[in-house]
Amino acid sequence: MRIDILTVLPELLASPLNESILKRAQQKGLAEIRVHNIRDYTTDKHRQVDDYPFGGEAGMVMKPEPVFRCIEGLKAERSYDEVIYTSPDGIRYDQHEANRLSTLENIIILCGHYKGLDYRIREHLVTCEISIGDYVLTGGELAAAVIVDSVVRIIPGAIGDEASALTDCFQDNLLAPPVYTRPAEFNGWRVPEILLSGNFAEIDKWREDQAFERTRRLRPDLLTEEE
Amino acid sequence: MRIDILTVLPELLASPLNESILKRAQQKGLAEIRVHNIRDYTTDKHRQVDDYPFGGEAGMVMKPEPVFRCIEGLKAERSYDEVIYTSPDGIRYDQHEANRLSTLENIIILCGHYKGLDYRIREHLVTCEISIGDYVLTGGELAAAVIVDSVVRIIPGAIGDEASALTDCFQDNLLAPPVYTRPAEFNGWRVPEILLSGNFAEIDKWREDQAFERTRRLRPDLLTEEE
Repeated sequence: MRIDILTVLPELLASPLNESILKRAQQKGLAEIRVHNIRDYTTDKHRQVDDYPFGGEAGMVMKPEPVFRCIEGLKAERSYDEVIYTSPDGIRYDQHEANRLSTLENIIILCGHYKGLDYRIREHLVTCEISIGDYVLTGGELAAAVIVDSVVRIIPGAIGDEASALTDCFQDNLLAPPVYTRPAEFNGWRVPEILLSGNFAEIDKWREDQAFERTRRLRPDLLTEEE
Repeated sequence: MRIDILTVLPELLASPLNESILKRAQQKGLAEIRVHNIRDYTTDKHRQVDDYPFGGEAGMVMKPEPVFRCIEGLKAERSYDEVIYTSPDGIRYDQHEANRLSTLENIIILCGHYKGLDYRIREHLVTCEISIGDYVLTGGELAAAVIVDSVVRIIPGAIGDEASALTDCFQDNLLAPPVYTRPAEFNGWRVPEILLSGNFAEIDKWREDQAFERTRRLRPDLLTEEE
């Protein structure tokens, strides 16, 4: 899988893309992640990537030309399955969308910044607008990092223990049950006796009950969602 | 505001916390962000931060002792308004929660990692569990970066143009209207004539209509939410 990220702030992405799972996935050849500085696609002396909004609003707007040039340049080299724009008004990102994206071959992620991107690019070049949640960030860079992390980690081979990914939250619309490790007693707090019993049928049932109970209490909306 | 972040992967946070708005907010003394490596709070030779789960599940669990030691050490120095744990099964983070957190004085953000944290720490030390969205990440580090960014940027003085933050998405439960900048025509695509008219009353009305129309079409759930 190849992911091209377009940003006005490439420095911000340096450490998230080059540590842990993402680093290993790239070393293994499972994912190729390229970061493009939109400023490199300007043609003016000041390398300007933003400008004042029409209609006199506060804030700055990402100019259309450099983004257009960068996307068109990439498309001339290969075809892309999606051109994603990260923005708080996109569709809400979830594990189902992460699963879908992880099956694609080439994607572009365009990071929103400032007051946002000139809307003509969104209308004509962007194929998919994604919001990682209902909150505003300084820019789309962290959103891009979140999308890349959640997608790349489920590419087969990316994490050492694939059975672990299968029991993650949301893969079955349930929250995960509590987990415990040694010591069995810490600071006067004991782990539930059932987990020490060695009775794996009972343990599985306990986990399932806990997952349902926690989901019902904390996120009842997940139980009513139908695919 | 002071934010202490506890993580097993401090390197991942290096660039997100030290660029752009977060860098400037720290330089201006508006926010003090400290990253603590949980591994520094281990006492064994191998500096082990994770261990196998009780009950024989796949994946590793964050050990309780080093996290406990780190949190207790911080609490001995000052009082904290919240001890936040980032986890996909926390309450869903949104702009209202970002606004609330931005008014606090001292918070701890504890990044989940591996299969999760020993549940006893969540029961006894954590005061607030936050999920940035319904998807699974390699670790809570990106979630912590998202929380810090969204919180610090709305501390008064953090961004240059506060009027811009007030017209952000979600501050009024509406998606933002489209924005455009020069040139007025690009690649055959023109900006809406109204924005070039100079009639600011009409422009305001257009923006409001667009915000409602986009919200109704893309995120009707926001319009039915009541505070």
